[in-house]
Amino acid sequence: MRCEVVAIGTELLLGQIVDTNSSWIGEQLALAGIDSLNQTKVGDNFARMEATLRQALERSDAVICCGGLGPTQDDITRDVIAAIMGVPLVRDEAIVAAIKAMFDERDREMTDNNRRQADVPEGASVIAEMPGTAPGMVCPVGDKVIYAVPGVPYEMREMMVGTILPDLQRRRGAAAVIRSRVLKTWGLSESGLAEMLDERMQELDRAGNPTIAFQASGIEGIKVRVTAKTDDEGSATALLDEEEALVRLVVGDHLFAVDDDTMETVVLELLRQRGWRLAVHESLTGGVMASRMTTADPTLEIFQGAIVAGGVSAHMGEAHALEAAAKARGRFGTDLGIAAIAAQDDEDAPRGTVYLGLDHDGGQHATTVALPGDRQQLRNYAVISLLDFLRKTLLQS
Amino acid sequence: MRCEVVAIGTELLLGQIVDTNSSWIGEQLALAGIDSLNQTKVGDNFARMEATLRQALERSDAVICCGGLGPTQDDITRDVIAAIMGVPLVRDEAIVAAIKAMFDERDREMTDNNRRQADVPEGASVIAEMPGTAPGMVCPVGDKVIYAVPGVPYEMREMMVGTILPDLQRRRGAAAVIRSRVLKTWGLSESGLAEMLDERMQELDRAGNPTIAFQASGIEGIKVRVTAKTDDEGSATALLDEEEALVRLVVGDHLFAVDDDTMETVVLELLRQRGWRLAVHESLTGGVMASRMTTADPTLEIFQGAIVAGGVSAHMGEAHALEAAAKARGRFGTDLGIAAIAAQDDEDAPRGTVYLGLDHDGGQHATTVALPGDRQQLRNYAVISLLDFLRKTLLQS
Repeated sequence: MRCEVVAIGTELLLGQIVDTNSSWIGEQLALAGIDSLNQTKVGDNFARMEATLRQALERSDAVICCGGLGPTQDDITRDVIAAIMGVPLVRDEAIVAAIKAMFDERDREMTDNNRRQADVPEGASVIAEMPGTAPGMVCPVGDKVIYAVPGVPYEMREMMVGTILPDLQRRRGAAAVIRSRVLKTWGLSESGLAEMLDERMQELDRAGNPTIAFQASGIEGIKVRVTAKTDDEGSATALLDEEEALVRLVVGDHLFAVDDDTMETVVLELLRQRGWRLAVHESLTGGVMASRMTTADPTLEIFQGAIVAGGVSAHMGEAHALEAAAKARGRFGTDLGIAAIAAQDDEDAPRGTVYLGLDHDGGQHATTVALPGDRQQLRNYAVISLLDFLRKTLLQS
Repeated sequence: MRCEVVAIGTELLLGQIVDTNSSWIGEQLALAGIDSLNQTKVGDNFARMEATLRQALERSDAVICCGGLGPTQDDITRDVIAAIMGVPLVRDEAIVAAIKAMFDERDREMTDNNRRQADVPEGASVIAEMPGTAPGMVCPVGDKVIYAVPGVPYEMREMMVGTILPDLQRRRGAAAVIRSRVLKTWGLSESGLAEMLDERMQELDRAGNPTIAFQASGIEGIKVRVTAKTDDEGSATALLDEEEALVRLVVGDHLFAVDDDTMETVVLELLRQRGWRLAVHESLTGGVMASRMTTADPTLEIFQGAIVAGGVSAHMGEAHALEAAAKARGRFGTDLGIAAIAAQDDEDAPRGTVYLGLDHDGGQHATTVALPGDRQQLRNYAVISLLDFLRKTLLQS
């Protein structure tokens, strides 16, 4: 099964927007075990879009076409796909009504241009998920298919997860229900994880259901996607639950989150359960931790704040990190303070040595990690390592 | 003149890395007035790379091929280009020596794989800039050309600016020397800027040299690229200086930076000249300002730190922003404190209303701006708006 990705939009070619959609889709396809060998960007030009989509259909079984479904004259994805299917566009009045309802809700006038968004190539079906005013479409072309989705990331993602990935699985296999679960791990290498799960993978290879795939995702760790194919929802969930339990047994607390949860949301939830609030001292991480935590907790319910500052200390090593963590806790009067400190030049520690410190009522915890990369990467790895250290400490408390 | 971009690497298709290189190259080409109508990602596979590069050469005059020049067996860009050129690879001993010198400097052993990086298709020339161990190459194919550059962003960028953009300009025109300058503006719309410069643009259209192009770049503002074609370096610089002066006359202090300078580096330099240090209070911006400033000033010479915190205030509107700015100044004992505060719900201000405050020895300054976007965009726009407000205030002090 081959599926390629075509991203539509002159603004992508001009570098006004970075095409993160194709990367995300590529990752989802890889986790689902579907080959994606080509990804292309093309501008809002009929001839070039048509040529690009036709070539993609020749090379692959399915094409995900992202963007160009908006209301303006530039947005011609609908027209190009209709031409490739050799069918006319038909206005879907149910979609017109759905779009109109959205405009009414926001007290805005619906224009004729917005009505164009309800035009669907004859024979195509509309994707049930429709978080915005642009409907997604499943467009059969012979025994192949073009999926058209909007370029707005959260709209595209909802359609991918709700309709496209299951449809691709259905086309590939025969099972009635296909469900996946992503288990996120931190602190393991891809080869290390593969080794730990080797025996189970061999069993699954023989049985064929569920299946497991790995994906290395940088500061998001290594993801394990489990996919189950069954006849009904209940037995799919049971298979996934069982497999998740087996993976948890093997990888232990390296598994930090499932599906949409992230390191931040998991840590925030653990703190919420305990009624604890958090502050951070940022010298090495220079505001990156605060920027991530305030995104996950915008009302500052749990995350109370950060001090971003340099500052000298009489302490070295882990004691320095503990001192900084205590400072943050003192400043914000929180239950917990945390800090990551890079080894100073005069400590003669290897490059990338970082001390993690955690200060709370019950006492202090510290550890030392070796992190890769340039200064910017080091900061990002320090943030995730510090959150993971906090998570593990909370789990043991 | 058409130039397309091919990004090489299976890790790009799998979504392990987001392809920011193509976006950056696309922006540079647009600013240089070169059409880039297709951008493609392809994995480390000989047949698919060859097909992709051949198709790109058919459609365009030049191809920038990014990645696959590393030392491992995956890295086959050299081999594929040699096949397309129909020539053998020849080991360039000068490059071997340069790579060996880099390894010696880092006290590391050079492997045979690294020697492979010195293999160059016969007839190709090596790009002078070589910040890493992967040499870039200019590979003529008939009257067309493939530029091969490494996927490491800073290595690629140095080669683009130093060799490839000038070479593309040379291929397009006849002038011996082609030089560009990017003038960065903030606070103007693209149409507003075009209107302001309309008369001058018309004059330049008639004269033909220098030329001017615009590029909307989101939170980086609108960029104006001036390109001069002349017979020698001196007169190119003179033309650019003259045009920059004219643009400055028209757009005034909306012009905030030139070429590699950014809003952060410009503000830091203005503070350095005055011997002033800066602190920020971040509630709305939640660490994003600190994260940017500590990246530009990693040793915290000028930027002393940030407090990331919510917190209630008796004040509303600009008075609230001034209070927060004074808090930051007090906490870090700096000459200046700044803060951006979003209008509270009970203020009944339009969505996106943000107050900017600046507290220093000489007094207080505040202003109100209306910013677009969702919460995340609002934060990014607030950071750049606050820095721009500080910049303008410094210029008038």
